[in-house]
Amino acid sequence: MQVKNIPLEERLIFALDVAEMDQAKELVRMLEPETRFFKVGLQLFLAGGFPMVQWIVDRGLKVMLDLKFYDIPQTVELAVRQLQGRGISFATVHGNRSIIKAAASGADGLGILAVTVLTSLGQEEMEEFGARRSIEELVISRAVAARDAGCIGIVCSPKEAAGVRRKAGSELIIVTPGIRPETGSSPDNDDQARSASPFFAVLNGSDYLVVGRPVRDSDNPAGAARAIKKEIARALEAVNR
Amino acid sequence: MQVKNIPLEERLIFALDVAEMDQAKELVRMLEPETRFFKVGLQLFLAGGFPMVQWIVDRGLKVMLDLKFYDIPQTVELAVRQLQGRGISFATVHGNRSIIKAAASGADGLGILAVTVLTSLGQEEMEEFGARRSIEELVISRAVAARDAGCIGIVCSPKEAAGVRRKAGSELIIVTPGIRPETGSSPDNDDQARSASPFFAVLNGSDYLVVGRPVRDSDNPAGAARAIKKEIARALEAVNR
Repeated sequence: MQVKNIPLEERLIFALDVAEMDQAKELVRMLEPETRFFKVGLQLFLAGGFPMVQWIVDRGLKVMLDLKFYDIPQTVELAVRQLQGRGISFATVHGNRSIIKAAASGADGLGILAVTVLTSLGQEEMEEFGARRSIEELVISRAVAARDAGCIGIVCSPKEAAGVRRKAGSELIIVTPGIRPETGSSPDNDDQARSASPFFAVLNGSDYLVVGRPVRDSDNPAGAARAIKKEIARALEAVNR
Repeated sequence: MQVKNIPLEERLIFALDVAEMDQAKELVRMLEPETRFFKVGLQLFLAGGFPMVQWIVDRGLKVMLDLKFYDIPQTVELAVRQLQGRGISFATVHGNRSIIKAAASGADGLGILAVTVLTSLGQEEMEEFGARRSIEELVISRAVAARDAGCIGIVCSPKEAAGVRRKAGSELIIVTPGIRPETGSSPDNDDQARSASPFFAVLNGSDYLVVGRPVRDSDNPAGAARAIKKEIARALEAVNR
């Protein structure tokens, strides 16, 4: 496997899953010595909007705007256009074929990540649809479609990363949430039904790891982030050997 | 069929699908004599945020915030909480069971509408999942689940409204996009694959009709809105007879 040339301090994307800008700023200040990449999701974006994004970008940090657009193609294309020129590195859209095509055509340099199947919802959706395919098949087919549509990368669970990497090639960026450190203090998986360790995720082809609660809920968030970075570094070495 | 006691001027929800606040304000000023309900979607919300919503609410008008949240349940619940206390009448979430349950538990008086299946994407999703069910089955089962989870209503295409009304009962609010006036000038259905006339929608149980382009693209938007209202009134009479 070919390892991408991504600085270690950008491989851990910290999820700013908080209700207020002030809390988010405190977390950024605390964690920026360890990670240079922050994820702004629905909750925080609704509280802080683009000024929150700008504040992070102005510190020289990277932003993944994780709003998971999911609407008719024209609306998604127009929504993606509203994100341009704001210094955002990655923005997420839901991974249906027509949506990702629309998003990619509105992207214009913005890195679009297609969310293949939500880690917590895959099984429910498959059952609800009476589906004949496995989650992994669906994730892989959406990943290939995302690559072909011009998306820079995809979001999938660590469990499907290896299959995606095999079928979609080495250039596609793979971002994996649902990370629980091996040494962490979170025995329950909460609503991330398909979680895995940072070591497993990297070994299976993940380029960026999204981590929220295991760091935030730690007594020592910066220390927890550092431990995850070390685990990522160990896995990258194992991959390169 | 029991017709709900909704003022005629609220039954037509005008979709403010524009890129800038100023354009939206112009449309609101032009159309408020005809309709008192406006939909703010992803594109406009990204441009104007809550100040745009507030501007509409401050004029004594109603707002449907159509962001179609689609994320893990905990995130959706927290996102819904961010919408409270802002005078929003309806907010949309995607209709998977766990998402609507989470949304309803964060709603606290806010009217949550579950988007059953996107009008433009239903068939693609069903094929992609290798699904055994028809779109109508999926829409109806999601509508019943939304009702049971405490959602005030659902969004579905006019074609599925009758089936939803039959199975989910008379109280559930049914909101239908994909409306093309019978007398309108839009022969193509664009990306609204399951569209129908206002008359058909109301006759089949729709309480609120979302209309955008057929009004906006008309030479006389207020006149086009008025014509749709007349068609709604005609249909309501037919239902009551």
